[in-house]
Amino acid sequence: MVEKGRLYVVSGPSGVGKNTVIDKAIAGRDDICFSTSVTTRKPREGEIDGEDYFFVDRETFDKMVRDGELLEHATYVSNGYGTPKAFVEEKISQGMSVISDIDVQGGRQIKAATDYSVLIFIVTPTMDELRKRLEARGTETEESIRSRLERAKAEYAESIDYDYIIVNDDLDTAAEEMKAIFTAEKCRYKNREFYLKEV
Amino acid sequence: MVEKGRLYVVSGPSGVGKNTVIDKAIAGRDDICFSTSVTTRKPREGEIDGEDYFFVDRETFDKMVRDGELLEHATYVSNGYGTPKAFVEEKISQGMSVISDIDVQGGRQIKAATDYSVLIFIVTPTMDELRKRLEARGTETEESIRSRLERAKAEYAESIDYDYIIVNDDLDTAAEEMKAIFTAEKCRYKNREFYLKEV
Repeated sequence: MVEKGRLYVVSGPSGVGKNTVIDKAIAGRDDICFSTSVTTRKPREGEIDGEDYFFVDRETFDKMVRDGELLEHATYVSNGYGTPKAFVEEKISQGMSVISDIDVQGGRQIKAATDYSVLIFIVTPTMDELRKRLEARGTETEESIRSRLERAKAEYAESIDYDYIIVNDDLDTAAEEMKAIFTAEKCRYKNREFYLKEV
Repeated sequence: MVEKGRLYVVSGPSGVGKNTVIDKAIAGRDDICFSTSVTTRKPREGEIDGEDYFFVDRETFDKMVRDGELLEHATYVSNGYGTPKAFVEEKISQGMSVISDIDVQGGRQIKAATDYSVLIFIVTPTMDELRKRLEARGTETEESIRSRLERAKAEYAESIDYDYIIVNDDLDTAAEEMKAIFTAEKCRYKNREFYLKEV
């Protein structure tokens, strides 16, 4: 028997520093990999099929949706994107965990479709701090900042199914908390029950 | 708002090294303390009321049971022992966690009575290893070892309500896992939801 992996869904508003926390938390680990999405978008220069994305045509994508082969899916700019069930479940059964950075709607779809997903929501200590981080980018108009803050509030309200909240105040603390969640989830009773049965 | 503490119940068969793991995991921390039990047993030389135990007479103890003031209780050698609700809940509301080393029956009582308990079961990698550790003590008869192993198997079967399993193979790993559980439990959605509401 092997301790199975998990599918970690990490969500949070734009500007919260999600990817910085993830990168720090998984640095140097070979037991966690990023999820590879399926998309109907055309590959860009240098993108590799099966690595950056699984590139499929719309017909194949729609069939995958119908056949329940995607754990979640959504459309952006008329392209379909989804999380392939087979890819995730193969990794997990080998004891690898998979991490996916998607929005709250996707997280909720995944939670409903699986019993091996763990949903982590990352927030700033205050909404003011989120505004400051968006302003610090220097690339956002006042209009787009306002719209991102509105969207953040909506995501907060919809995050009710999430398992954990990480407050990204200090990056080191946030990354340590994410690592602790990875370790604790390995220790879950269901994941180690087989020890009790083998004895 | 403050992040609340948890009541950690740590159970596991005699000989598994429970207290060694706990001691290593909580060393140097001021955010976790041991639970102080209520007992009808007479104080021994040097024992301090309110520190080693809360010493009460049988009438008081029985009244505490009737009034729901104990989260769990049991009788050993005709003395009553129990976990006082008020003590635990005061610590937890201050953001302290409380750790209690009790058996599976007590753990299940606590789980049923609270929404802030986290149950951790500690095991050896195999039943053979548990036998070896009991033999290594040099104080157990073959008869008492056999009886302890039988009891361990029964506890394994009854541990179904537990949240986590720690396999005490390597002490450092086991203590790190316990510490990761402490950290992850602080990050639980319910425990940090107030961040989403204050913004």
